[in-house]
Amino acid sequence: MRLSRFFAPTLKENPTEAQVVSHRLMLRAGMIRQHTAGIYNWLPLGTRVLQNVARIIREEQDAAGAQEIIMPTIQSADLWRESGRYDDYGAEMLRIKDRHERDMLYGPTHEEVVTDIFRNNVKSYRDLPTNLYQINWKFRDEVRPRFGLMRGREFLMKDAYSFDIDYASARHSYNQMFVAYLRTFARMGLRAIPMVAESGPIGGDLSHEFIVLADTGESAVYCHKAYLDKPIPENVDYGADLTSIVQDWTSLYSATDEKHDAGKAAELGADLISARGIEVGQTFYLGKKYSTPLGAKVVGADGNSVDVEMGCYGIGVSRCVAAIIEASHDENGIVWPDSVAPFHVGIINLKVGDTACDEACEKLHRALGLQGYDALYDDRDERAGVKFADMDLIGIPWQIVVGPKGIAKGIVELKRRATGLKEEITPEGALAKLGATI
Amino acid sequence: MRLSRFFAPTLKENPTEAQVVSHRLMLRAGMIRQHTAGIYNWLPLGTRVLQNVARIIREEQDAAGAQEIIMPTIQSADLWRESGRYDDYGAEMLRIKDRHERDMLYGPTHEEVVTDIFRNNVKSYRDLPTNLYQINWKFRDEVRPRFGLMRGREFLMKDAYSFDIDYASARHSYNQMFVAYLRTFARMGLRAIPMVAESGPIGGDLSHEFIVLADTGESAVYCHKAYLDKPIPENVDYGADLTSIVQDWTSLYSATDEKHDAGKAAELGADLISARGIEVGQTFYLGKKYSTPLGAKVVGADGNSVDVEMGCYGIGVSRCVAAIIEASHDENGIVWPDSVAPFHVGIINLKVGDTACDEACEKLHRALGLQGYDALYDDRDERAGVKFADMDLIGIPWQIVVGPKGIAKGIVELKRRATGLKEEITPEGALAKLGATI
Repeated sequence: MRLSRFFAPTLKENPTEAQVVSHRLMLRAGMIRQHTAGIYNWLPLGTRVLQNVARIIREEQDAAGAQEIIMPTIQSADLWRESGRYDDYGAEMLRIKDRHERDMLYGPTHEEVVTDIFRNNVKSYRDLPTNLYQINWKFRDEVRPRFGLMRGREFLMKDAYSFDIDYASARHSYNQMFVAYLRTFARMGLRAIPMVAESGPIGGDLSHEFIVLADTGESAVYCHKAYLDKPIPENVDYGADLTSIVQDWTSLYSATDEKHDAGKAAELGADLISARGIEVGQTFYLGKKYSTPLGAKVVGADGNSVDVEMGCYGIGVSRCVAAIIEASHDENGIVWPDSVAPFHVGIINLKVGDTACDEACEKLHRALGLQGYDALYDDRDERAGVKFADMDLIGIPWQIVVGPKGIAKGIVELKRRATGLKEEITPEGALAKLGATI
Repeated sequence: MRLSRFFAPTLKENPTEAQVVSHRLMLRAGMIRQHTAGIYNWLPLGTRVLQNVARIIREEQDAAGAQEIIMPTIQSADLWRESGRYDDYGAEMLRIKDRHERDMLYGPTHEEVVTDIFRNNVKSYRDLPTNLYQINWKFRDEVRPRFGLMRGREFLMKDAYSFDIDYASARHSYNQMFVAYLRTFARMGLRAIPMVAESGPIGGDLSHEFIVLADTGESAVYCHKAYLDKPIPENVDYGADLTSIVQDWTSLYSATDEKHDAGKAAELGADLISARGIEVGQTFYLGKKYSTPLGAKVVGADGNSVDVEMGCYGIGVSRCVAAIIEASHDENGIVWPDSVAPFHVGIINLKVGDTACDEACEKLHRALGLQGYDALYDDRDERAGVKFADMDLIGIPWQIVVGPKGIAKGIVELKRRATGLKEEITPEGALAKLGATI
């Protein structure tokens, strides 16, 4: 992609409305633009990152045995009256009347809808366990939207819902999602720590929030410092018993503010981390909170009807993008982890119009494309300083800088955004190194 | 994927509420379920097809130089007051008040939002042309939703918007999308014929609807029969002048009912096709209809400010899924074109529990996965008749049938869903044939 043709309106100045670094950098890098309070447009750069984050989530959900569906954003209020939540759910629910004056709403969550799908289509224990997930837009009418994507009103969410015949099976489903979450966040470069949490308006009596530590986090959190470098489970067999992995990740102290036990925490001494945190996901064991009022039951092996056990599991997809920036940036801009970067490589042409530079850049651009890498080629007629600043701001993991002096000697500069390390190398050498690295 | 674990609740009976074949088959195959009038859940099978259709659209939009963004589903009414459409747009617009009593709406279309993005971020002719597209949910509050996805209320749409400095450039953008549409629909197995059309509430003075002929189409359409086998443009250079391709595709008579000229049509004699049609896409040249009231202007090469020329280009993504079924089914069910099929291959185990059958099926399932094909393995303990019927209903393009007699001789049956042709072949032969075909 040529930057001269790419729609990425960067800003030189810090926008005054942005209070947190992720919001500021997403605006400055031209990733997003506000449409109205708490509602954003995703420009091409932001869209690419959001899709990469969603892809990782999707791959890990699929690997854990969940199946993707799509539920509507606009729901009928009837199901919420059945579950008893229509009146309970506060002003954050966007309530709508359609042209026939029927009560509708923009889904803030989908327990009712998915339970309705289940009860209408599954009748036998043989079809269990089932775990259905979607990645779709939700709306919560925050009274005071702020911090950009951190507390927006329209946001992209992954929500999964598990259905099981009994508690033991439901716990296994919970554990599958728990382990998938550890892997999911790690793959996008986030260290997310599971913390015992309140289940709030979703309900249920077992819940973990997955929290990324960051100074700009909205809530106080506490955990053992061993969580910071705990190895992430690999080559997981999701069919096997996952209890030991989950126990390993829940045996050390960790808690959100509401669940914090100061006495217990004090026992950790110097091992206690007391910090601010950003919630990027939450898991809930729901039991029969929805299945009983909505009548989601199956016939068991013994011929008796039983209300199914449920769990639900959310990830704030758009919020993850902000959390990644909060966790990975410097004074010059964003530092994307390779796995979610909008482009793998940036090519900077220091002298557009110079035949040798143009040819070398075009050749690199083509070669990277053939190797399957997305490259962003800065072919604009701009000063070198502007190009360096924009490429750092956008945060592409690798930069290849092509200048007339170097190219006369057959040399380009390969820079790693994260470390700032630069290396003089031939174009072929740069391609080989990227091929082996990305 | 094992069918015993796959959430695809098929129906043996025809649902009474479904009047058109696509609606009936999507319900029967377990692709969708209605949530409430005109609003659907997409189950795993439907989700896979919808994603395949969206992928083809995305690839062709990218190839034509459009850039993907995401605009919000919930919009502020303010921009619609600026454009003058807030009061004009009828009861199909879902109007909403948020908790602060601000007027919002669920976007039925996005001209205002994208023009607002443009005017706030683009200032110079140097940044033109620009074409931005999104694939996202829209809502039109149909007074009488019907025909399943054909006339639903919440639906998935691809909408692109082009911005150009002058008419000549705007026509080139229009032509790019026109040619991309020919390719897009062909790739998903649809013969979509461009027809001169009214521009309706979107506006502008040049428009084509892309129409798939089908008995169940909602409107009468007319075209020269040569459109039925006109070759689709290949290896298109979207930077080059596309006028001749567009002329070639618009010089023969074709018109929607509103634009129909009976006199002109009569001249075609026996070459005239008079049929019903399903609109799957529409292109509009908008001129300055939105840029002037919203003040979307750039500074031209001569230093003067000029309102930009716009175009907009829609594809009904979810409607395409229904149109494909209308165009490709038989009395046994859906016949998916390979490009959009939810799975490439189905494996039918005629005797689950038989060691030889089980082993052969598992081996095929694994081998297909390693080759990168999605296979749906019917490992259920069901009668052969049920399995054959379900696999035909779901419409997977290739079926491999594994039975005890055949496997004793080292033979399976390979069936092509579209033709019904069956072939006795070794499992290795079937894999080789699929490898060369898919």
